[in-house]
Amino acid sequence: MNEVSINDILHSNKFLDKKVSISGWVKTFRANRFIALNDGSGLDNLQCVIDFENTDDEILKSISTGAAINVSGSLVSSQGSQQNVELKVDSCKILGDCNPETYPIQPKKHSFEFLRENAHLRTRTNTFGAVMRIRSNLSFAIHDYFKNNGFYYVHTPIITASDAEGAGEQFRVSTLDMKNPPIDDNGKIDFKKDFFGKETNLTVSGQLEAEAYAMSMGKVYTFGPTFRAENSNTSRHLSEFWMIEPEVAFMDINGNMKLAEGFLKYILSYIVKNNIEDLKFLENRLIVEEKQKPQNERGELTLIEKLKFVIENEFKIITYTEAFEILRNCKPNKKKKFKYLIDDWGTDLQSEHERFLVEKEFKCPVIIYNYPAKIKSFYMRLNDDKKTVRAMDILFPGIGEIVGGSEREERLDVLLKRIKKVGIDEKELWWYTDLRKYGTAVHSGFGLGFERLVMFATGMSNIRDVIPFPRTPQNAEF
Amino acid sequence: MNEVSINDILHSNKFLDKKVSISGWVKTFRANRFIALNDGSGLDNLQCVIDFENTDDEILKSISTGAAINVSGSLVSSQGSQQNVELKVDSCKILGDCNPETYPIQPKKHSFEFLRENAHLRTRTNTFGAVMRIRSNLSFAIHDYFKNNGFYYVHTPIITASDAEGAGEQFRVSTLDMKNPPIDDNGKIDFKKDFFGKETNLTVSGQLEAEAYAMSMGKVYTFGPTFRAENSNTSRHLSEFWMIEPEVAFMDINGNMKLAEGFLKYILSYIVKNNIEDLKFLENRLIVEEKQKPQNERGELTLIEKLKFVIENEFKIITYTEAFEILRNCKPNKKKKFKYLIDDWGTDLQSEHERFLVEKEFKCPVIIYNYPAKIKSFYMRLNDDKKTVRAMDILFPGIGEIVGGSEREERLDVLLKRIKKVGIDEKELWWYTDLRKYGTAVHSGFGLGFERLVMFATGMSNIRDVIPFPRTPQNAEF
Repeated sequence: MNEVSINDILHSNKFLDKKVSISGWVKTFRANRFIALNDGSGLDNLQCVIDFENTDDEILKSISTGAAINVSGSLVSSQGSQQNVELKVDSCKILGDCNPETYPIQPKKHSFEFLRENAHLRTRTNTFGAVMRIRSNLSFAIHDYFKNNGFYYVHTPIITASDAEGAGEQFRVSTLDMKNPPIDDNGKIDFKKDFFGKETNLTVSGQLEAEAYAMSMGKVYTFGPTFRAENSNTSRHLSEFWMIEPEVAFMDINGNMKLAEGFLKYILSYIVKNNIEDLKFLENRLIVEEKQKPQNERGELTLIEKLKFVIENEFKIITYTEAFEILRNCKPNKKKKFKYLIDDWGTDLQSEHERFLVEKEFKCPVIIYNYPAKIKSFYMRLNDDKKTVRAMDILFPGIGEIVGGSEREERLDVLLKRIKKVGIDEKELWWYTDLRKYGTAVHSGFGLGFERLVMFATGMSNIRDVIPFPRTPQNAEF
Repeated sequence: MNEVSINDILHSNKFLDKKVSISGWVKTFRANRFIALNDGSGLDNLQCVIDFENTDDEILKSISTGAAINVSGSLVSSQGSQQNVELKVDSCKILGDCNPETYPIQPKKHSFEFLRENAHLRTRTNTFGAVMRIRSNLSFAIHDYFKNNGFYYVHTPIITASDAEGAGEQFRVSTLDMKNPPIDDNGKIDFKKDFFGKETNLTVSGQLEAEAYAMSMGKVYTFGPTFRAENSNTSRHLSEFWMIEPEVAFMDINGNMKLAEGFLKYILSYIVKNNIEDLKFLENRLIVEEKQKPQNERGELTLIEKLKFVIENEFKIITYTEAFEILRNCKPNKKKKFKYLIDDWGTDLQSEHERFLVEKEFKCPVIIYNYPAKIKSFYMRLNDDKKTVRAMDILFPGIGEIVGGSEREERLDVLLKRIKKVGIDEKELWWYTDLRKYGTAVHSGFGLGFERLVMFATGMSNIRDVIPFPRTPQNAEF
């Protein structure tokens, strides 16, 4: 292990004129003399200057892009304008060479499609290194925020026998022999003989279990993988993705909105503070990419400006009914420019409507709350109007919905009626309804799709490029 | 949401003589006057003193164990010996009552079996509240340690088409119709028609994918769920459990041992510092439990002593061959007290042998390394003797193996030979072998079963009691 990382060396003066030994991978080798070395600790490379006249030819030949080498020497002030410090190499060892003829990651621009096929190597590029460092720091910031605010982390189950949450299609988990499954007396698959003694699936949400923990530990959150078996082959959907779900006792919908806003601002601030080099790199990448687009499709703000805009501005809070009125009367609706026209109160908002509100009408993140009950889940707190529930969605520019949450229905009688109405057997939810029988209280929470957040934070436009090894229909490589 | 938590109030003087409003659950209600209130923020309750003569009878009747209430009043110095501060209640509101006749969590001792059946309520007990707070803080300490030491967090995939790691039986993930699965020309299930276009399973380890990331980002770790479909109905096995897997480039087996020891000491120190009340409670619980056992089966150290012993002492490092010699010549082996006698070099060590080394021979955590190649995985670095591999296991008192790791085979030719030997098609591992083709380097890592760690840290003896909703054969409730 490197005793000192390249990131440390480049961000501290204390190593100047010191001897160090560093292992890393060659990014480029210029003029038989300048090695740009990277050990994975950060975006910037260490310039290593090798005395080619006194170095073995075999070694010089092996110093090529992608090769792993160990160099030792002294850190000296650099003459070059690109860096303050460079390594004067005394000795260089080849750890693992890298055939330039066959190495997939050439020192040139590769398409993201090509890099997805080489997901095991793509973090060797600047773009994916930056994306994954930001992903890692966002994860840490999430734990840090909740820890600082008195939340406990709960690992809710991944394999679940309950499909009551109803958030989407599920993957079945089984050890039964698919060619000769046991059949019961009714001619159906006999899941009693399966591993768990019943039919089991991959979870779509840890919310219901998190509620159980909130009703004893007060403030809790989950951060784990969730699954959707929908055949959605888009740049916004994954079959396996990570979700953060805080759940808080004694908190109503207003507290929920405040929590979500404070939380999002904290974690985005964290990366602006801790990943500024990565962000600048990705910002420039995006500027170059956007130049390919027609003027009117380009973003008005750069990546970092967009992050700061979210951090520094208050989110706009409006009810569904207010949003509905704005949309019904807006130009694109009147001129029938929307694909889905807004006519009747109660209709669900589509991505085009959400983007209009965020990007055209308010030009800031928007929280919409008090949605029509019929388009939202059974567990959301019914308002006194009996028509709306205390649901809230947070909409971000470019991304659309990034957070969905609600105050939960804490009244046993109302909850039971709504469970019945959506056709779930209440016995399946015996433990969930227990929470309303014994010491029930107002409580609320929300879900944040982690990859959507990473997309927003990095400016990447395909969700497959912000998770290490994406799972999508027809794709579970690596 | 409570603006100030009970945990804050009890651990700070700044709230004395202040007015507060607190919501929580009633733990006990004595003498129509003293409410022990808990909001989930910590083990200790806030004593709330209610003026029963001026309180409505209906309200007094509803203040029972498990009820959710809101109290407001002034925080004053307490006359009682149990606490420094208490709340003089001005007003009390019942949020959700709790029928003492039907509430499963009575203010008495419940068996852990009973509480497992009520896993949605069991964190309302002191024991499970303490266990889950420690679990949460251990999780945070893990992220904190890696963050402080320059590691990046990697979310490796849960659904995987690879079964090459071979760590255990796997659960199949599928959306095919089990009653009428598609059959191919060879009469086999046609997984090409399945969701991912091939047969997929739940991961048993993120190691191989973590290696890919280590070979570009240098120091990485995973912390996610892993799965075993073995039909092991024991107090030490779960079908779904969480694992931590660091992986570091340019680190050999010695660095790996140092990393693991430093890491374990850091995270255990963290809870000794941050969960001392929970630990004291669990320590006392354990002392009471152990009194039921015969003298010779009782632990020599209390829970906190055991944690400090690990934190303060160097781990004993021995080779497999040294361990083998000690075991072959020890009394229990000679007197044939072991179930599995140690005769021939190369045999795997059983739990009884590991416990002898840790608990009798060295009385401290033990690291055994350089295991016989034939009992270890294909990816472990072969030593020059061609007989042993650079594997290491860390053994803890009471728990046995808590960490398993190795230096990885970084030489392409040796790795390919070993892949062939274990009967895996090397094409399946094309991306894994790529890592040895392009800039290969020494690298190492280990896996830590999180629930084993929580067992050690809390003194709980059944692994089902340290994870919120355990999954085991025939059990996927909640």
